Amino acid sequence: MAFAARLKAAYPWILTPLVVGAPMRLIATVPLTIEISRAGGFGFLGAGSDTSTLDSDLENIHAHFTERPLPNAPSPSTRILPVGVGFLNWGANLEAAVAAIARYPPAAVWFFAPRSTNDLVTWTTKVREATGGRTKVWVQVGTVANAVEVTRACQPHVLVVQGSDAGGHGLAQGASIITLLPEVADVIDSLDMPGHEKPMLVAAGGIADGRGAAAALALGAEGVVMGTRFLAAHEADIANGYRNEVLRAWDGGKTTMRTSVYDQLRGTTDWPPGYNARGVLNRSWVDAENGMGWEENKKLYQEAVRLGDLGWGPEGRITTYAGTGVGLVKEVKKAGDIVAEVRSAAKEVAQRVSTMSFE
Amino acid sequence: MAFAARLKAAYPWILTPLVVGAPMRLIATVPLTIEISRAGGFGFLGAGSDTSTLDSDLENIHAHFTERPLPNAPSPSTRILPVGVGFLNWGANLEAAVAAIARYPPAAVWFFAPRSTNDLVTWTTKVREATGGRTKVWVQVGTVANAVEVTRACQPHVLVVQGSDAGGHGLAQGASIITLLPEVADVIDSLDMPGHEKPMLVAAGGIADGRGAAAALALGAEGVVMGTRFLAAHEADIANGYRNEVLRAWDGGKTTMRTSVYDQLRGTTDWPPGYNARGVLNRSWVDAENGMGWEENKKLYQEAVRLGDLGWGPEGRITTYAGTGVGLVKEVKKAGDIVAEVRSAAKEVAQRVSTMSFE
Repeated sequence: MAFAARLKAAYPWILTPLVVGAPMRLIATVPLTIEISRAGGFGFLGAGSDTSTLDSDLENIHAHFTERPLPNAPSPSTRILPVGVGFLNWGANLEAAVAAIARYPPAAVWFFAPRSTNDLVTWTTKVREATGGRTKVWVQVGTVANAVEVTRACQPHVLVVQGSDAGGHGLAQGASIITLLPEVADVIDSLDMPGHEKPMLVAAGGIADGRGAAAALALGAEGVVMGTRFLAAHEADIANGYRNEVLRAWDGGKTTMRTSVYDQLRGTTDWPPGYNARGVLNRSWVDAENGMGWEENKKLYQEAVRLGDLGWGPEGRITTYAGTGVGLVKEVKKAGDIVAEVRSAAKEVAQRVSTMSFE
Repeated sequence: MAFAARLKAAYPWILTPLVVGAPMRLIATVPLTIEISRAGGFGFLGAGSDTSTLDSDLENIHAHFTERPLPNAPSPSTRILPVGVGFLNWGANLEAAVAAIARYPPAAVWFFAPRSTNDLVTWTTKVREATGGRTKVWVQVGTVANAVEVTRACQPHVLVVQGSDAGGHGLAQGASIITLLPEVADVIDSLDMPGHEKPMLVAAGGIADGRGAAAALALGAEGVVMGTRFLAAHEADIANGYRNEVLRAWDGGKTTMRTSVYDQLRGTTDWPPGYNARGVLNRSWVDAENGMGWEENKKLYQEAVRLGDLGWGPEGRITTYAGTGVGLVKEVKKAGDIVAEVRSAAKEVAQRVSTMSFE
């Protein structure tokens, strides 16, 4: 079956090219998740490492789609939700997650940053058992080697291939999707997996508009993930100070960086080795770079947090996680409009490129 | 005038989409440069910081095209060469470069890494004066801010927009072309430049096949630069050990890194601040990472150089500069075949994407 048909068979409410909302912890809460799926995209709830509100979140999502059914989505009576849930496997509670998912199975879970491939296999097995396979497994990878390992070990339905431009957490060292996506596509294509369907690829990292989306399709992706772009969605759960900084920042290759400074300041230091996060450079980062001790830097960070919205900005101290595409994000819009615009712009770009002069 | 028409007016032998050979120092010598242009691409001689052989190189190129004229290229009697020359402005001798170019004007020069924008303006002015504008000026940039500054100061014919995946030298910190290219395109598009044509954009960094090329066109480029791919061209001036390591290495996001270690070992430490280079990780890098002193590491490097082809490899010590796309390079081919294949594959990819399911 062609990939687009496979996607639509599994997730019948989606429109193509598939636009996915990244499961941003604290930001992709119920409203953003719902609105992305309502627009024919695929919203992922950012459960992250915390399952404490997962039961009520999934119940609320189910109640929403019962009240306002989504055309082509699974009937609310099946309890299958036309959204996904993203977990940080290293920190999330497996039993709590599986119990919540068993009650209201999301159409997919998105796994990221397990402590080991064995842990990933456990999560995958338990979720499939608990939902009778109704919840598909997506796994995020950042290298070719890991894409192969994960595919062999877990046979995921989708591989989320994240490149180095992505905002927030990812591998400290890596390629952008320009080279990572086609190399993963070639290697997966060459794998011998008798009895199993190959995973589909969606691209993440640096996609903020129709040009990036069309580029990802050219590279071999079946869909695209956006995170930074949705920071400027009306429905994102985000402080005004954070959102304003996303709208202000530009030239993201220069003004953002992959660093562990913000993890240190925020106390999110339980990540497995090899990960850090991309954020807009600010005063905390400059001070850390200039040798300020963590104790003092953390104290100043806490003071900035008390300032609220004024605590963000290049001279501020609160963390603005964002990708290198931050300069392409200039306007706050409804999440559904963002999804529809990226889809239609990608189509226009594809048409423009196909009618360029080729000799 | 549309960009493709502008390109063909200035460089009448090229075919579209334009495939450019990066001016790799020591590697893009006369044979590779010629063969890329003969295939309808745009070969750039890698003069770098050394103009000592430039006179004879340009004379040899002129002799070649006199003997074997290239259809649609400027007549040899004009002395305009259907190739370009790349200079590292921080190190190259301006007077020697201009004198050589005045005798045999290349169709374009490619400037990179000046110590200041003032220096770049001087180079630009002198080259235009010496050739009556017959030699066009291309400038490589790696940030949006620099793209604006260079465009205002020099009005280049082409901006080479280099992303973080590129092999060899570039900015130590930056975005990939996924976000850099569209943001540069938007900003250049918005500039008010009465009386001047806007520069055209070509993308560099991570493009190794038709998928990357089509992606770059989707992002807003008029053409693509390849470096790493041409390391495996028959005509590249490259040791077998180096080429074998390029063919062997894969998963470049993991196995290559931007670092200054190789500059230290090779003694190329005169670069302006902010630059380093991407190469395949090897024993020199591991030892430097583990705290080995430069003196010892350099001594071991020199010993490896004496080994010749056996000095390369993951357990070797000689530098393998390559981009993250190194895993997409698997076969040695004629440079002209690489150019033609990327052009035709880009067309196929563009057709594939435009006929994907869009709703």
